Amino acid sequence: MSDLDGNWALDKRLRDDTIFLWEDELRTVLLMNDKRWPWVIIVPKISGAEELSDLGVDRLACEMQVSSRIGDHLKAFTACAKINTAAIGNMVRQLHIHVIARSPGDANWPGPVWGFGEREEYIGAEGQTLAAQLSKELVKE
Amino acid sequence: MSDLDGNWALDKRLRDDTIFLWEDELRTVLLMNDKRWPWVIIVPKISGAEELSDLGVDRLACEMQVSSRIGDHLKAFTACAKINTAAIGNMVRQLHIHVIARSPGDANWPGPVWGFGEREEYIGAEGQTLAAQLSKELVKE
Repeated sequence: MSDLDGNWALDKRLRDDTIFLWEDELRTVLLMNDKRWPWVIIVPKISGAEELSDLGVDRLACEMQVSSRIGDHLKAFTACAKINTAAIGNMVRQLHIHVIARSPGDANWPGPVWGFGEREEYIGAEGQTLAAQLSKELVKE
Repeated sequence: MSDLDGNWALDKRLRDDTIFLWEDELRTVLLMNDKRWPWVIIVPKISGAEELSDLGVDRLACEMQVSSRIGDHLKAFTACAKINTAAIGNMVRQLHIHVIARSPGDANWPGPVWGFGEREEYIGAEGQTLAAQLSKELVKE
């Protein structure tokens, strides 16, 4: 598994359901286009990876560190009560890591976000505006 | 945060809802007492830790590697289709990592396990028997 995987391409459903945040050679970072929760998705660029163990030891440490940092920034930015982090992939098998800001009173608190109701897209420019703010926040060191 | 945290104690709800699998100085590993899914929970022994980022860089890498290995063993043992890995903690704040074997046709496939229906405890010795098998499998290198 190369870190610069020429065969990797973003899954169509992940692309269709999200707003692009940023990418580098190792990963693409997306904002779920669902205004019910501030919800970031990290997609390591490794073709064929489905389980966290497919990342290998070093890359797993790296991607989890990125996810953890994004969680911290998302928590600071949204003032949420809890970060939910998960690699599920029952529907979209391409390995992706969810990092979601959760708070009492949100659409399904304290239940999970996955499989709850229907996605509610951001309206007009609000998704792009949030994506721009998040991109700036999330890459802060 | 010490690796040998004398102040750490397992959350009461985690203890009540699970069957003990094994522990070492760094973590306790539990089997959710819910026969709907083979479901392991890793609890790092760090008092006050709630978010993955509370683990720090090295310990996060370590605990995710343990989770990843447990996922591989659980997948081999159960022949499941997908491993779901998550740190949620909306209800129990003590940091714990879920590693769950999922397959088409299970109780809520492809939806999440959290918040779905009621926990169904193992009957008689079947929980302890599975726990004994899993403990043996999961510590294999």
